[in-house]
Amino acid sequence: MTLQVLANPGTSSTLAPKVIPARSQAVVDIASSSAALLHPLGVSEVKLTDNFWAPRLKVNGTVSLPSQYRLLWDTGRIDNFLRAAGKKECDFQGIYFNDSDVYKWLEAASWELAAHPENDGLRNMVDEACAIIEDAQDANGYLNTYFSVDRVHERWTDFNAHEMYCAGHLFQAAAANYRSTGSTRLLNVALRFADYICDNIGPAEQSKMVKLCGHEEIKMSLVELYRITDEKRYLDQASFFLDRRGSNVLKSNNPAYFQDHQPYREFTEAVGHAVRMMYLECGAVDIYLENGDESIYQAALKHWDNVVSKKMYITGGLGARHEGESFGENYELPNDRAYAETCAAIGSIMWNFRLLQASGESRFADEMERALYNGFLSGYSLDGMEYFYVNPLSDDGAHRRQKWYGCACCPPNVARQLSSLPGYFASTSSNAIWLHLYASGNISESLSDGQIVAFTVATDYPYDGRVLLTIIEAPERLVSFKLRIPGWASKSTITVNGETPVTEVPGYADITRKFEAGDTIVLDLPMEIRRVVSHPFVETNNGRVALVRGPLVYCIEQADFNGVDVRSVALPVSATISAVTDASLLGGVTVLECSAVVNDWNPGDGALYATEQVKFDQKKTVHLRAIPYYAWANREAGPMTVWIPETND
Amino acid sequence: MTLQVLANPGTSSTLAPKVIPARSQAVVDIASSSAALLHPLGVSEVKLTDNFWAPRLKVNGTVSLPSQYRLLWDTGRIDNFLRAAGKKECDFQGIYFNDSDVYKWLEAASWELAAHPENDGLRNMVDEACAIIEDAQDANGYLNTYFSVDRVHERWTDFNAHEMYCAGHLFQAAAANYRSTGSTRLLNVALRFADYICDNIGPAEQSKMVKLCGHEEIKMSLVELYRITDEKRYLDQASFFLDRRGSNVLKSNNPAYFQDHQPYREFTEAVGHAVRMMYLECGAVDIYLENGDESIYQAALKHWDNVVSKKMYITGGLGARHEGESFGENYELPNDRAYAETCAAIGSIMWNFRLLQASGESRFADEMERALYNGFLSGYSLDGMEYFYVNPLSDDGAHRRQKWYGCACCPPNVARQLSSLPGYFASTSSNAIWLHLYASGNISESLSDGQIVAFTVATDYPYDGRVLLTIIEAPERLVSFKLRIPGWASKSTITVNGETPVTEVPGYADITRKFEAGDTIVLDLPMEIRRVVSHPFVETNNGRVALVRGPLVYCIEQADFNGVDVRSVALPVSATISAVTDASLLGGVTVLECSAVVNDWNPGDGALYATEQVKFDQKKTVHLRAIPYYAWANREAGPMTVWIPETND
Repeated sequence: MTLQVLANPGTSSTLAPKVIPARSQAVVDIASSSAALLHPLGVSEVKLTDNFWAPRLKVNGTVSLPSQYRLLWDTGRIDNFLRAAGKKECDFQGIYFNDSDVYKWLEAASWELAAHPENDGLRNMVDEACAIIEDAQDANGYLNTYFSVDRVHERWTDFNAHEMYCAGHLFQAAAANYRSTGSTRLLNVALRFADYICDNIGPAEQSKMVKLCGHEEIKMSLVELYRITDEKRYLDQASFFLDRRGSNVLKSNNPAYFQDHQPYREFTEAVGHAVRMMYLECGAVDIYLENGDESIYQAALKHWDNVVSKKMYITGGLGARHEGESFGENYELPNDRAYAETCAAIGSIMWNFRLLQASGESRFADEMERALYNGFLSGYSLDGMEYFYVNPLSDDGAHRRQKWYGCACCPPNVARQLSSLPGYFASTSSNAIWLHLYASGNISESLSDGQIVAFTVATDYPYDGRVLLTIIEAPERLVSFKLRIPGWASKSTITVNGETPVTEVPGYADITRKFEAGDTIVLDLPMEIRRVVSHPFVETNNGRVALVRGPLVYCIEQADFNGVDVRSVALPVSATISAVTDASLLGGVTVLECSAVVNDWNPGDGALYATEQVKFDQKKTVHLRAIPYYAWANREAGPMTVWIPETND
Repeated sequence: MTLQVLANPGTSSTLAPKVIPARSQAVVDIASSSAALLHPLGVSEVKLTDNFWAPRLKVNGTVSLPSQYRLLWDTGRIDNFLRAAGKKECDFQGIYFNDSDVYKWLEAASWELAAHPENDGLRNMVDEACAIIEDAQDANGYLNTYFSVDRVHERWTDFNAHEMYCAGHLFQAAAANYRSTGSTRLLNVALRFADYICDNIGPAEQSKMVKLCGHEEIKMSLVELYRITDEKRYLDQASFFLDRRGSNVLKSNNPAYFQDHQPYREFTEAVGHAVRMMYLECGAVDIYLENGDESIYQAALKHWDNVVSKKMYITGGLGARHEGESFGENYELPNDRAYAETCAAIGSIMWNFRLLQASGESRFADEMERALYNGFLSGYSLDGMEYFYVNPLSDDGAHRRQKWYGCACCPPNVARQLSSLPGYFASTSSNAIWLHLYASGNISESLSDGQIVAFTVATDYPYDGRVLLTIIEAPERLVSFKLRIPGWASKSTITVNGETPVTEVPGYADITRKFEAGDTIVLDLPMEIRRVVSHPFVETNNGRVALVRGPLVYCIEQADFNGVDVRSVALPVSATISAVTDASLLGGVTVLECSAVVNDWNPGDGALYATEQVKFDQKKTVHLRAIPYYAWANREAGPMTVWIPETND
């Protein structure tokens, strides 16, 4: 293969530092397309003060992010940049895509600075990292430390070497850094590399190299650069990458793994590596949000239907197989061998958030919330120091979080999701403010006419379903509050100033009126304990139920079962289950309690199979305590299960 | 690494052709060790005439084996030998261990010649293959076509290149060929290579290369060469390979995959690649059978306990994971993603057969029978032309047998198991004849004093439990018949000459008397239909039952369920199930029939999860027909499941 790297790139965008409006500090700062029904608020416009997320975000900003930065140094990831800059003599350290961990950390830290510009310690780390990265960039704009020094001539020779994946994370980090701080230092690094890619990779008719990346990521990041610069070439480049996927550019013998088996608009089933699939979906919807190409959106909906109705764990976890970290067949959802990578849950949150902006449909917010409180949050230890890569729904006790991983995609991705989380709470449409998630805090936003809507939220969500909004400031005209009624809430009520009943509707409840300071809206979401069952084709869950309350999926963990293996516990159909708040347990949780029975396996553990007559003795009862799934594996190691066998006893 | 290949091997065994006694045509021709309680009969000493196995063995000898030989040519496997011999100019074709497929076929064809020496067509193929193999051997005894021509200098550089695995299959083929035909042509090729290995590989103290093979196999084959030649160096070499395993000779970063994580005598759990584990176990027990080292036997029993009580499918299938074709954790037994490789079931049959010879304990015969009728036989299509590599216990209909595989270990292994099957039916101890398996046929055997015991067996086993033995010839003294009472048979009866009741004992019933020609023994094994349940820790099978009758595991297959997806079928606890023989179905089977209900998933297929209140509607009934598991996927493709949800309805 001949490298056709242009010595003098055509155009090179360079931006000067400026003050970014708070509204542009959005996770997805959608430009002016009509395809976007909603526009997200900026990360700094939503101040969380609640007991659930705020402490976690604080730990993330003060414990997790600094400790991760130390690990980036300790594991040679930053040395790799110094080496590329000629400032350090050493071998390349770690895995070939290790640059992406630095970028993801930078994006996470940048969002943290948007919410907490006073965090000077973190700002110093960010500035140091940006300078080191800038130094490592080639004069022509190329930047990848694995393909520096001794591997320059291997650039663009291996589609699965994650070159554009790393570039994409650089672009996202740069976008976040620019939006959060106004600094253009990292952004200009990104723009130079983006220009290099646009100049050198593209259609053969333009005498460019026809290249795609094995690991999707770059599309959504190019769209962000478009959103910042208004340079249409970035959006066009993202479209090129989307449109060529599925046309055998990769020449892989396992194209489905890379979502390269069919064009995006044609395939109907979630396949291959789950994180790659999610990042593909995010990029596709980002392109749709900007260019309004309905064929993209229709394909996304088909893929979404397949994921949600056939291939998603109740936790929102995605990826049934360890082989290839991938989706399995329809209804293939093993619990003990669930892969459900933390990064895939994050990808799902990002995807659903984008679909939500496109549509205003609460089903996407429901799935975002499901993944957020369960399959994502389980990836993060209560002390903010350890992470799961894999999130099984049952375990024998061997699976524990780790401080770091050789392939460390998850830890900085968790930090990124947390630091940017305020940006996922609310959006606006022309004259309305939409609340997708609920937590105590303050929200202040100027509407399209420049007038301010400011209000507080008070709630103990997700443990309590009462949400109180108090208006601080509102324009003197009609304004709509769109409050999400979660799909799981069967009988919610809404009152305004304690009086006006609003008729319940599925999806987003609409409260339109002239608001005044001091007006209150109370949303009451019933926190019933639900016994949830699975489609009968999910064979692992046959005869089992999961306990769910509000958005939280529960599990039973060995630490709560003195002497009885949790895998022997069966839940009687007749059991009455109570929700009990325990402020001292696991950082403060509401647990579910009832009396259950023990399936004593009469033939003894030496027998794997037995004729039915002799199977179970259910004479023994046990006190069942279920904890939120996200909190498992924070005590002594032991078996855990989400899906509990039900018994008619 | 320096190759220390001796130019002049020390000793070289060479044997002249001779007439082999029928008794020595045993699958495991145990020598004179006291560790063996039983000695198997030769393959030619058991003539099967039944309706179940005999037709399959005939298809194997007349259809499967000739077609496989053609495939060995068509896929370049035999060309590889011609190339190594300098008789053909071509690249090496296929996978690096493709020689083993030729050897396994040769072993299979050789056993077929033991049973059917009149099969001249097959004999010609065998002779042709032996001559081609002989030609390809190096002067120093080395033989592996992948490491010939351009890769000579890569020999012994990669422990996972299957060099000794291929050698082991050569040795087994040679042993079978010698025992079946008396020809020493292939045997002498094997002995030359075995001598080369003994001369060059061994303890460092003897200035030899310390090498083990990543894929176990060679140990049991070296023991067979010892059994034929009485050369103790072969047994010692096998012991060397066994004793060094687990001492990090392989230097793999995944030693458990290769059963190299701990010494054989120390580990307690079945781990890693299931076929390798089984072949390791066979080799270990073979060594024990010859040297009586009790520590080997005790370790084998520990491993067996773990397999049978924690890691075995009800079909006898082994290997829960596609990743690494490997065992999973205890109780990890997914049905749809079961690997349960046909070769692993064969390995289990071989292992249990060896343990049975060591002990005379029927539990080993039970597991041999379970694997034989279910997890093994499912690997073979009814027409003898197609094979399963993977044997799931439930499927959506996509899994179908194939005529051949790129990695073609299974097809010739199936042929080998079938052609040698008569050798698994019976053994003798000092004055007793032991029957392990039941099928109509004739058995004739001379006891240790040279006197003949000959008898016929008449039965419709496995579909009928009545077994009639008629004595043809017996010595004029006390002789014991040891008849296996399967573990699944709860109330068997035995009569002798229609009169004498023999008290039922677990394990092998002992009938000792002076027999005369015309005496009859009738064993009646009740063929009750059993609903079998799993240990509660096997989460996939919670709330499900498997239907089992005699040794046969049943399944339900879509072809029998008009318009109702088999995965929606639930079996009422109260259902009365009947066994119905259908001679026209699937080559003649007894099916199980009852009325069942349909779990209509009320929320519709678009919902993966639902609150329990709305889950199932069971108003619809359906006629349930279950077929033997081995016979599935011989009709139109469709879903199948072994484990059927049970309902209290």
